[in-house]
Amino acid sequence: MKKIEDVLSDFKAGKLSEKEALKLISDAQTMDLGHTKIDRSRRGRTGVGEVVYGAGKTPAQILEIMEAIVSEGSPVLATRLSSDAMELLESKFPQGRANLIARTFSVGAENRESSEGFVAIVSAGTSDMPVAEEAKATLEFLGVNAECFYDCGVAGLHRLLENIGRIREAQVVIAVAGMEGALASVLAGLVKEPVIAVPTSVGYGASFGGIAALLSMMNSCANGVSVVNIDNGFGAAYNACLIAGKSRL
Amino acid sequence: MKKIEDVLSDFKAGKLSEKEALKLISDAQTMDLGHTKIDRSRRGRTGVGEVVYGAGKTPAQILEIMEAIVSEGSPVLATRLSSDAMELLESKFPQGRANLIARTFSVGAENRESSEGFVAIVSAGTSDMPVAEEAKATLEFLGVNAECFYDCGVAGLHRLLENIGRIREAQVVIAVAGMEGALASVLAGLVKEPVIAVPTSVGYGASFGGIAALLSMMNSCANGVSVVNIDNGFGAAYNACLIAGKSRL
Amino acid sequence: MKKIEDVLSDFKAGKLSEKEALKLISDAQTMDLGHTKIDRSRRGRTGVGEVVYGAGKTPAQILEIMEAIVSEGSPVLATRLSSDAMELLESKFPQGRANLIARTFSVGAENRESSEGFVAIVSAGTSDMPVAEEAKATLEFLGVNAECFYDCGVAGLHRLLENIGRIREAQVVIAVAGMEGALASVLAGLVKEPVIAVPTSVGYGASFGGIAALLSMMNSCANGVSVVNIDNGFGAAYNACLIAGKSRL
Amino acid sequence: MKKIEDVLSDFKAGKLSEKEALKLISDAQTMDLGHTKIDRSRRGRTGVGEVVYGAGKTPAQILEIMEAIVSEGSPVLATRLSSDAMELLESKFPQGRANLIARTFSVGAENRESSEGFVAIVSAGTSDMPVAEEAKATLEFLGVNAECFYDCGVAGLHRLLENIGRIREAQVVIAVAGMEGALASVLAGLVKEPVIAVPTSVGYGASFGGIAALLSMMNSCANGVSVVNIDNGFGAAYNACLIAGKSRL
Amino acid sequence: MKKIEDVLSDFKAGKLSEKEALKLISDAQTMDLGHTKIDRSRRGRTGVGEVVYGAGKTPAQILEIMEAIVSEGSPVLATRLSSDAMELLESKFPQGRANLIARTFSVGAENRESSEGFVAIVSAGTSDMPVAEEAKATLEFLGVNAECFYDCGVAGLHRLLENIGRIREAQVVIAVAGMEGALASVLAGLVKEPVIAVPTSVGYGASFGGIAALLSMMNSCANGVSVVNIDNGFGAAYNACLIAGKSRL
Amino acid sequence: MKKIEDVLSDFKAGKLSEKEALKLISDAQTMDLGHTKIDRSRRGRTGVGEVVYGAGKTPAQILEIMEAIVSEGSPVLATRLSSDAMELLESKFPQGRANLIARTFSVGAENRESSEGFVAIVSAGTSDMPVAEEAKATLEFLGVNAECFYDCGVAGLHRLLENIGRIREAQVVIAVAGMEGALASVLAGLVKEPVIAVPTSVGYGASFGGIAALLSMMNSCANGVSVVNIDNGFGAAYNACLIAGKSRL
Amino acid sequence: MKKIEDVLSDFKAGKLSEKEALKLISDAQTMDLGHTKIDRSRRGRTGVGEVVYGAGKTPAQILEIMEAIVSEGSPVLATRLSSDAMELLESKFPQGRANLIARTFSVGAENRESSEGFVAIVSAGTSDMPVAEEAKATLEFLGVNAECFYDCGVAGLHRLLENIGRIREAQVVIAVAGMEGALASVLAGLVKEPVIAVPTSVGYGASFGGIAALLSMMNSCANGVSVVNIDNGFGAAYNACLIAGKSRL
Amino acid sequence: MKKIEDVLSDFKAGKLSEKEALKLISDAQTMDLGHTKIDRSRRGRTGVGEVVYGAGKTPAQILEIMEAIVSEGSPVLATRLSSDAMELLESKFPQGRANLIARTFSVGAENRESSEGFVAIVSAGTSDMPVAEEAKATLEFLGVNAECFYDCGVAGLHRLLENIGRIREAQVVIAVAGMEGALASVLAGLVKEPVIAVPTSVGYGASFGGIAALLSMMNSCANGVSVVNIDNGFGAAYNACLIAGKSRL
Repeated sequence: MKKIEDVLSDFKAGKLSEKEALKLISDAQTMDLGHTKIDRSRRGRTGVGEVVYGAGKTPAQILEIMEAIVSEGSPVLATRLSSDAMELLESKFPQGRANLIARTFSVGAENRESSEGFVAIVSAGTSDMPVAEEAKATLEFLGVNAECFYDCGVAGLHRLLENIGRIREAQVVIAVAGMEGALASVLAGLVKEPVIAVPTSVGYGASFGGIAALLSMMNSCANGVSVVNIDNGFGAAYNACLIAGKSRL
Repeated sequence: MKKIEDVLSDFKAGKLSEKEALKLISDAQTMDLGHTKIDRSRRGRTGVGEVVYGAGKTPAQILEIMEAIVSEGSPVLATRLSSDAMELLESKFPQGRANLIARTFSVGAENRESSEGFVAIVSAGTSDMPVAEEAKATLEFLGVNAECFYDCGVAGLHRLLENIGRIREAQVVIAVAGMEGALASVLAGLVKEPVIAVPTSVGYGASFGGIAALLSMMNSCANGVSVVNIDNGFGAAYNACLIAGKSRL
Repeated sequence: MKKIEDVLSDFKAGKLSEKEALKLISDAQTMDLGHTKIDRSRRGRTGVGEVVYGAGKTPAQILEIMEAIVSEGSPVLATRLSSDAMELLESKFPQGRANLIARTFSVGAENRESSEGFVAIVSAGTSDMPVAEEAKATLEFLGVNAECFYDCGVAGLHRLLENIGRIREAQVVIAVAGMEGALASVLAGLVKEPVIAVPTSVGYGASFGGIAALLSMMNSCANGVSVVNIDNGFGAAYNACLIAGKSRL
Repeated sequence: MKKIEDVLSDFKAGKLSEKEALKLISDAQTMDLGHTKIDRSRRGRTGVGEVVYGAGKTPAQILEIMEAIVSEGSPVLATRLSSDAMELLESKFPQGRANLIARTFSVGAENRESSEGFVAIVSAGTSDMPVAEEAKATLEFLGVNAECFYDCGVAGLHRLLENIGRIREAQVVIAVAGMEGALASVLAGLVKEPVIAVPTSVGYGASFGGIAALLSMMNSCANGVSVVNIDNGFGAAYNACLIAGKSRL
Repeated sequence: MKKIEDVLSDFKAGKLSEKEALKLISDAQTMDLGHTKIDRSRRGRTGVGEVVYGAGKTPAQILEIMEAIVSEGSPVLATRLSSDAMELLESKFPQGRANLIARTFSVGAENRESSEGFVAIVSAGTSDMPVAEEAKATLEFLGVNAECFYDCGVAGLHRLLENIGRIREAQVVIAVAGMEGALASVLAGLVKEPVIAVPTSVGYGASFGGIAALLSMMNSCANGVSVVNIDNGFGAAYNACLIAGKSRL
Repeated sequence: MKKIEDVLSDFKAGKLSEKEALKLISDAQTMDLGHTKIDRSRRGRTGVGEVVYGAGKTPAQILEIMEAIVSEGSPVLATRLSSDAMELLESKFPQGRANLIARTFSVGAENRESSEGFVAIVSAGTSDMPVAEEAKATLEFLGVNAECFYDCGVAGLHRLLENIGRIREAQVVIAVAGMEGALASVLAGLVKEPVIAVPTSVGYGASFGGIAALLSMMNSCANGVSVVNIDNGFGAAYNACLIAGKSRL
Repeated sequence: MKKIEDVLSDFKAGKLSEKEALKLISDAQTMDLGHTKIDRSRRGRTGVGEVVYGAGKTPAQILEIMEAIVSEGSPVLATRLSSDAMELLESKFPQGRANLIARTFSVGAENRESSEGFVAIVSAGTSDMPVAEEAKATLEFLGVNAECFYDCGVAGLHRLLENIGRIREAQVVIAVAGMEGALASVLAGLVKEPVIAVPTSVGYGASFGGIAALLSMMNSCANGVSVVNIDNGFGAAYNACLIAGKSRL
Repeated sequence: MKKIEDVLSDFKAGKLSEKEALKLISDAQTMDLGHTKIDRSRRGRTGVGEVVYGAGKTPAQILEIMEAIVSEGSPVLATRLSSDAMELLESKFPQGRANLIARTFSVGAENRESSEGFVAIVSAGTSDMPVAEEAKATLEFLGVNAECFYDCGVAGLHRLLENIGRIREAQVVIAVAGMEGALASVLAGLVKEPVIAVPTSVGYGASFGGIAALLSMMNSCANGVSVVNIDNGFGAAYNACLIAGKSRL
């Protein structure tokens, strides 16, 4: 494929008609699988490779997309995988890395060297683990170190306080909590780093699938909290990478 | 007025017809002001005197109700008073006790001796004070000691931890908080006493007039929390009084 | 394990470095199973042993946690158990106590002597029974007597009034109701004890899985009602235990 | 104006073209004031005269509409009147009947003879009175007897039970309640008549302007309850009239 | 069983202690099956026999309740039956009457003679039929004639207008509609009878399981509409019976 | 069947009684299958044949309705088909046209000639395809050309901008998007044609089954957007057809 | 100002550097007032001039924006004007056209010749008039004929049916309704044209400021309805203009 | 005041009792004004000085708090000020810096040298300016450069694209938007930096005071977006500072 810069200079030089130029620019940016257009220019534009959101796609579709990306030499991460999709990917990409709790699978990021520093992932209860692990798997894919501090809910504050020293050394803190989501506020009152809050759908009754935690986090009385969507461990990790990545440049 | 017990024995003895008995029992229980029926039997039934909810009543109506109750020798508390109502009551009952922050006024409970022990009222921010003071004024009216611990939000955890020793000595803890309402969970994880949580309408944006705090408190990951309505300092105090054991006296 | 007090005096005496002291304090408080940190200091801190919330955990995880707690000589209660988990626990702990309606299982509290007095559990309809039974099983685990008054909905007021004499003798009343949840208000108007209201998800149409009952209970026109989360029989019982325990002192 | 029947027979007889017939039928049904089309055929169609909903209309508009209706010899009722509108109507229609609590005004129904039987209007608290009075004023306009039982909330059940004998003699019961709206369920469990429930916007915090009461009433565990809109005293009375009126035929 | 009147006179005569009297009164009113208290006095109190809400009960429980009621010689209706429950009841009560679309089953009301007049059940779409049939089966159980007008949605107004003549002859109209629920408003503008509106959970997207229809019906611009819970065909029929029954007396 | 015009002239000529005329008019408009009334006059009234909404109907019911319509020589479209219904229809109507992604089936529109011009269907992500395809299948049934632009979400703006030239040539634009639904606003800012926005239920967490996208589209800062129900590809296509001018033909 | 086409050809010819070209293109598109960027290219891009949303802007800001647009010779419309803003504009633009009910003001469209055909604006009640008039004023500004049919709510169906003949001749129908919003469904069942539904915030109680009407319209059982935001008369008119304009070509 | 480190070493040395040590630690952390406890240790703990949230506090309270902080030599920022509070602060602190659009006032940060790099604040419409300015004033207080790009809504995409080159050079991007909030998604698709989204309460109808924008931003289809509360310009700036500050270390 031609690079966009070359297309443009060929166009200025009159070697390409406007229509030809447009076509080539388009090709340079997107690969069309029919059901999906793979975004070739994403890495250049946003600094991160393609990520495949597995929910609502068939194992076969996921495989096709991942093979297309891998064939271009790019790393790729898939999230929200069914166990069927998981098995198919494991059989096709023996070198890939699966995280069974997070239900993620990545190819091409196995030997990525990690940056200095780390992101702290703090979660409130055992049941928040899948979301926390999704964040961890994403950070690994992105080449960012992660340390997990699980089961640190505010009902047993000492469990959190024991670890606060190490958490304070992180570059970014991800707070994963369902139920009333108070962990984000408490953490933000204790650290100097930005806290990315992930409400989880853990809870029952009036937790409304994560809304109680979401509202709690949006209304945090502590400064330094921003919030991503319910159960969105991937999104939190992505943000954390952008923030931590900043500081490496 | 005849006591109900007397009416019943007169009825069994044939001194009263069924209709007369019914009428007397009714009179013993209710005094009718037209717009309001004062519940004479409430103290016997529930152990607490009449409380007048001032919102939506005119100063004149409030005065009329309070005068009727006071004339029977009963103590009375009014809450949610406008400043007009406040002034009127102060001029008519010079012996009464006003709380300007809580917007309450009581008559007939001035010299009540307090019980042993105390209820701890812990609030998260300066703006939660009116609700916390409503709880305090109510407890005073009910003859229960109250100690206030204001501005102890979880964003500055140390402000709470400094006071936790004294709070643990209380019989009941009232947690008053708006925004994300995390105070209730944190407190319940630190004390052995029942925690009554009062969400307040303090906050903005997605706090939805107290709903964020309410949901947070309903979903507390810590055990020992029960919740009353938004801004309902009176209700929390009333419950605390029942728990602290007033009602057995 | 060293007691925390001993660790502290050793530290002051210079027998332990700050780091060693911190480590020992941490060990005294928490036992780490990887996915779960068991809170060893909870009983000292809050007066109640560990309770395992079974929903969202595998039977194997639940068993592992319970075995760890039992091995320390502590009593333990598990709630929201699947039938698979139930069977596994029954086979491993033949001495344990199962409640099939409530879907709870406890070990180590079989011979607990009960306190004087009792908690009244009043429920509105047949379908509210699982929640009411969860409250009952919890109270049994905590060593508090419970008496149940089932099917006392306000549509047949006489069913409630028949039992009101005995209910009035309780130390605390738990009101369990779905649909419109009016039971809590009616009860609170009839008794002097604190009423803990548990909305249930019983109902259909505009009951919204318990929200109608929850709102009804939050807005009770009667004093003395506080509310726990939808279907949270455990939470109501826990609160009742704290309150009843209080009044025994 | 020609009656519709005459127009039709003239049309069949060829005395009128289709277009002329249509025009005359239209005139017979509607009088056009520009901003409002008065529905001349409503009484024939639904058995009740025109009612003017005053909210959002200027006093002058309301007056104009009422004068137009009165000029045709029809009775008319206006609801939700501002005090300005009230004053204007009182000065223009000295024979009219004003209800200051309900904020209604009627003309032309002063000497209406009432039917036998009555509708019972039962309200929960003092603050529900304006809605209850709107129902009462509407019933008077419609020529139906009404008896009011105010301040009968379920927190003081005896106030309701005292009156239940008389309430049972009504043809229809209107239950007016804010807060948790439990009155409707309790009433429906005690009477054989249809209960029309009116949630009111009385309450605070999580009452959400009447939604808590509305949901409570929709989910009534007692049979025989149907619900009208929040604060809709007029609508309840209208329904009650249709039901009670039925039984007079 | 002793009648309550006899118990009372025996008590006055001194033949019964207060405790014995209370016990006998209680027995006269309720039969206790453990999980359910059957309300023996309901028919006397509200004029209708017991109705069993089948959802959330096991076929065995439903059978036990129905057998107990039938053994007392009372008619009984069960609603919201699973097909398992349906089959069990059909095998045990060969004389009973099943409605497979409505999922109801009744015993003891087979030969009930119907009243004069009828209730019109008008439904908007094919998918609203189960709710409409629940209303119909209930009316049959209660001895009230019903006529159904199905698939009369407002999108094809002529289908409604064709039938309006007959609908106007009914004593009460039940309007069953999902989606936007406009049928209730249109009907109420066309008839003189009370309209009971039943929102159904039919719809998709932003219909929110019937809320769109519920709100639409609550806000009807036409007079004479009252509303029951979503999918509550039984409740609508019960109300219709009370209303129609009135007019027979 | 008689045409309505003929019925009317026969009636005026006295050849038909009013009752006979009404009956014949009714027959001309509706064919009654018991559970469904087929609307014979719809095409005359609204310009479009009958469409069968398959959700909630059994395959047998769907088949019966379609056979009845086809037997009258009318084209028919069925949407929201289960795979069982799909198979049944394919076996019975070998000439029909199935769209497996959209889950639609049509008969009688196979050889319809298309109009000039086209409707552009632009969708945001792969998962929005079933809704977009429902729109496409509907347009084909209605004889309107459709061009699809899939996977054009605003996160990769260039994918949209590449196609904007062709999209601008459409007569109407249908924007299909879940998640935050921003596509509608961006499109409406770029084109001169009306944009019909279809929120989809694609998303997770706080997307609430399409509500986030729905609200986003309702609040579009760009002019020229109107919205249909969540996932309502059929409705969008129907509107697009009306706008594109089909209905004048 | 240079036209964009000229800038591009100058750039290709080398007369302009890339930076200069970019600057000139930007100038051609936007005029910067500091607080507002006027969109010079909007008319070319979307076919409509700039419209100023007056709510939340000071009269002075509105005037400044309008003067800037008028000075370029473009027509301009302002909506949601306060009476202060209205007066200011009337004094500054004596030739402008004010609509006091709609609270709109336009300049430069006074002598616009209207297209053939018309848009029908049908509203349900008197109180919906301001929204309907906003639609009308917008259509006038856009050079599209409008005819208004006011007070045609479905409670008095005949008022609608009287006018349906003329409404059917329109190119597009705008349905404006608050309360239950049934008008849109009824209209769409009667006409062949696209119906744009505007929910209004008219209503009380459970109408929730227009949500009841909005949901009703989104769930319309009739085909051919699309919806704009609550009270968005402007948006409906804008859409209608796009549609009507389409069909004229 | 003693530093905490000194207190601790004095305690270990036996110079202070436990009680005295505790008291001194407490003093070092908090200054008590009665209604407010000023958090002296916040700067050390979180790196930022005290910020006074002005809403719900009297001008006198705000002044008192600010004077106390200034008297300790610390910088202070107040937000959400009424014009009364604004005037009072301007008269007392002539050296302070007021932002009238943002309604903020700061003292002690006037001569702060700014860091390298900058934060881009991009807003959608003129009405979003107060929120954007709150973010800007906060960044200035925190010593972080800010550049504003106003009126860049997605309806006029070119206004955004013109500035995208400069926006890409920022360290963090703050996206401020009401209505449908699409700006955040579009921006995040175009830049490599973290995007902090601030929904604003700008909009009407179904925007629900910012909820539509909030949900839209939570569900962004683009990666790299995290969200703060509605209208929370301060919070966004605080987060941006933490992130940008990271990169300066």
